[in-house]
Amino acid sequence: MSEKIAIYPGTFDPFTNGHLDITERASKIFDRVIVTIAKNTKKEPLFSFEERITFISEASKHLPNVSTGSFEGLLVDFAEKEQAVAIIRGLRAISDFEFEFQMALMNHRLNNDITTVFLMPNEKYTYLNSTIVREVAEFGGNVDKLVTPLVAQKLHEKYKSP
Amino acid sequence: MSEKIAIYPGTFDPFTNGHLDITERASKIFDRVIVTIAKNTKKEPLFSFEERITFISEASKHLPNVSTGSFEGLLVDFAEKEQAVAIIRGLRAISDFEFEFQMALMNHRLNNDITTVFLMPNEKYTYLNSTIVREVAEFGGNVDKLVTPLVAQKLHEKYKSP
Amino acid sequence: MSEKIAIYPGTFDPFTNGHLDITERASKIFDRVIVTIAKNTKKEPLFSFEERITFISEASKHLPNVSTGSFEGLLVDFAEKEQAVAIIRGLRAISDFEFEFQMALMNHRLNNDITTVFLMPNEKYTYLNSTIVREVAEFGGNVDKLVTPLVAQKLHEKYKSP
Amino acid sequence: MSEKIAIYPGTFDPFTNGHLDITERASKIFDRVIVTIAKNTKKEPLFSFEERITFISEASKHLPNVSTGSFEGLLVDFAEKEQAVAIIRGLRAISDFEFEFQMALMNHRLNNDITTVFLMPNEKYTYLNSTIVREVAEFGGNVDKLVTPLVAQKLHEKYKSP
Amino acid sequence: MSEKIAIYPGTFDPFTNGHLDITERASKIFDRVIVTIAKNTKKEPLFSFEERITFISEASKHLPNVSTGSFEGLLVDFAEKEQAVAIIRGLRAISDFEFEFQMALMNHRLNNDITTVFLMPNEKYTYLNSTIVREVAEFGGNVDKLVTPLVAQKLHEKYKSP
Amino acid sequence: MSEKIAIYPGTFDPFTNGHLDITERASKIFDRVIVTIAKNTKKEPLFSFEERITFISEASKHLPNVSTGSFEGLLVDFAEKEQAVAIIRGLRAISDFEFEFQMALMNHRLNNDITTVFLMPNEKYTYLNSTIVREVAEFGGNVDKLVTPLVAQKLHEKYKSP
Repeated sequence: MSEKIAIYPGTFDPFTNGHLDITERASKIFDRVIVTIAKNTKKEPLFSFEERITFISEASKHLPNVSTGSFEGLLVDFAEKEQAVAIIRGLRAISDFEFEFQMALMNHRLNNDITTVFLMPNEKYTYLNSTIVREVAEFGGNVDKLVTPLVAQKLHEKYKSP
Repeated sequence: MSEKIAIYPGTFDPFTNGHLDITERASKIFDRVIVTIAKNTKKEPLFSFEERITFISEASKHLPNVSTGSFEGLLVDFAEKEQAVAIIRGLRAISDFEFEFQMALMNHRLNNDITTVFLMPNEKYTYLNSTIVREVAEFGGNVDKLVTPLVAQKLHEKYKSP
Repeated sequence: MSEKIAIYPGTFDPFTNGHLDITERASKIFDRVIVTIAKNTKKEPLFSFEERITFISEASKHLPNVSTGSFEGLLVDFAEKEQAVAIIRGLRAISDFEFEFQMALMNHRLNNDITTVFLMPNEKYTYLNSTIVREVAEFGGNVDKLVTPLVAQKLHEKYKSP
Repeated sequence: MSEKIAIYPGTFDPFTNGHLDITERASKIFDRVIVTIAKNTKKEPLFSFEERITFISEASKHLPNVSTGSFEGLLVDFAEKEQAVAIIRGLRAISDFEFEFQMALMNHRLNNDITTVFLMPNEKYTYLNSTIVREVAEFGGNVDKLVTPLVAQKLHEKYKSP
Repeated sequence: MSEKIAIYPGTFDPFTNGHLDITERASKIFDRVIVTIAKNTKKEPLFSFEERITFISEASKHLPNVSTGSFEGLLVDFAEKEQAVAIIRGLRAISDFEFEFQMALMNHRLNNDITTVFLMPNEKYTYLNSTIVREVAEFGGNVDKLVTPLVAQKLHEKYKSP
Repeated sequence: MSEKIAIYPGTFDPFTNGHLDITERASKIFDRVIVTIAKNTKKEPLFSFEERITFISEASKHLPNVSTGSFEGLLVDFAEKEQAVAIIRGLRAISDFEFEFQMALMNHRLNNDITTVFLMPNEKYTYLNSTIVREVAEFGGNVDKLVTPLVAQKLHEKYKSP
């Protein structure tokens, strides 16, 4: 019975309660979960790499088998290096599904030993993604139930008038 | 590091190469996988319960951590009894997704400790389901690449003219 | 400012908390809402017409501008007779959407004065429909948060062992 | 430059103006089009095979390169026998797409020389299918713009009270 | 019977005949409709705010209960300030649906007293959105049936060679 | 029996094995196929127009009835000038479908004599598009089974470290 490791990759700009819900589910079905920030992203993130790692660590500190990581290059190469058996992706909606489906098929082709595993968050996070959280915060809406207190505070600092 | 058990439920009438592909992937990421026939189904199956169990056992005999089972009543009750952490479902297409999404949300509500895990088969099984296999066999098409040799033979026997 | 009447048609076998959520939203945006049972349905319902009317009346008794009704024949003819300006439909998922889209376009063609209005229930009812409620009840699952107490009790009576 | 033949298969119960629109488009891009009734269907049709052939012939009599046919067994075997290069399918909506996608992939696998070709009808037929036409006619709605005059008359005869 | 006010928000760059169709339907089911330009948009619009307001006013001048407005910040805050009971959105296609679904769920969470109401335009506007209108105009295509004469003229002026 | 010409338009940045599969299918059902590069695209392509034309010509040199072309302005105007009866589009997934559906309806409206024809590639190209090919190549993944040898070599040259 070998240790089963899973990678949960994303931009996490910022980490939301939906991401946390997926991380908690993954931590129950795998021996170890690495929440991993993709550094390839073309878009300039709102939060720095260090801030985003802190958000994830702080939110998942009650989950002893969850750690953080980062990668550049191909995700499957990182997964292989970490001896992971699975890549975790959250699915909320059809539009996720299409893109994720294509990515999973491509990743299977690049390395068929690593399986993409789709998990669904609680239905109360169906509407939730990082973009919508940033927009609500930017226009002064309350994000207290969408992200952890630390993220809520940092969003408030980013967007408050000078 | 407790043993991680997953249930893969279905009607499997018959078990196809797409089901086998999902079973193989699941066997890599869980310590034990129970391929489980749902006995509740209202429709009369083409193959008997015993035939379908045989198809699964024979197809997965190279996978030592895969066994077969069956259940009546609620799936989550069976999963809890077996101390499973996950329910496995194959996703091929959008129409799967919708129905599976609703079932997964309902199952989360009935027992939030058991997570539904979606896996995708190889893209060459995108078109494949048990219904289409039965139809092709019924009209004399060749199903040799769609199912195991045993299932192909039994389909042939069912549909050959007397 | 003429009175705005809306029809909310369905089979309601049984009326769920998701249906109630839609009814409450409709009651806020229209002056009068008629929850209307379609009598054309080919399938034999689990609950009689009278039982279903009782479920709706009881669940919506706190909404003074909601009443019940029934129709045979074309929905748009009933809507016209009731001088309704709108037909209300709940949307939870893509598969709803497709069917509803076709029905709405056909109804617009049959009577362009009556507009179909789509409302979305709270996300906690995303997974909920009458079929899944009947199935959970049939296999002994708890439906207390899915339907009103009266419906839960009647479902229990229908399915309890003799 | 060999003659290019296409098969347009369906149940056509009855042939609608949407089917006619697809047939007209097909007749412009292929040298010959065979509108073909599938005899395998499990459901009892409303109109007899002969009535449905008459509806198609009458509706397409202005299209000299369109003829009618029928098949039992596998569609690709019929297409091969007729030396067809293409199978034509109408696409109106996502739910069509999924099912058609699976059928096309299976047919490609059974005979890769015959390509499935998807055409879209005019947007005014987006809502139109044979089932909805039968339902509107059954409840006394006007179908004059949905089908040819002959089909409208026959629907009226089927459903008028005795 | 209190006055029922609805907000119809959008970028309207430019207002199309599909938008007008939705506005007309909304004007029949609500006592007052405010077609409202969102000023938050990051993209530089083709037409100025003043031009777009003029397009809407001119197109809807036959609808006495329709007026124009604009907002910055959160839509639900604007809706609350205007004492609106509903936010109107046009639905043409699945891809609309997904995005709209997420926005509606988020808006319900931000203010559960304001319901999002989805309306469908006539099927002849299924293909129509502002982007496609701008593209057709840019390449010299005829947009006379897609927008009002005023918008068609202004598009022509924008794109005609110098 | 007039010659049937079809246009296959795209950006082809680069031409993939999925595009080639569609081209081969089209070459069997039309007398002549023109693979046509759209020059309107706002985004800067990775490969120059000349490179992309070379990729297409080289990949389809075994297909005598396939040639290359390019257009600016409206596609339907180009198609009419070439006396084409059809525009060919590849469909792999739902998200393609939506966009393609809108474009096809608009093109039908601009010129109803030219029909859009949708073809599906082999299921092994379901995951494949030019964007994903560029990304895999950029991060050093192997693209040998996704594109022709010439394209693979040129991608390698573009992305190799200096």
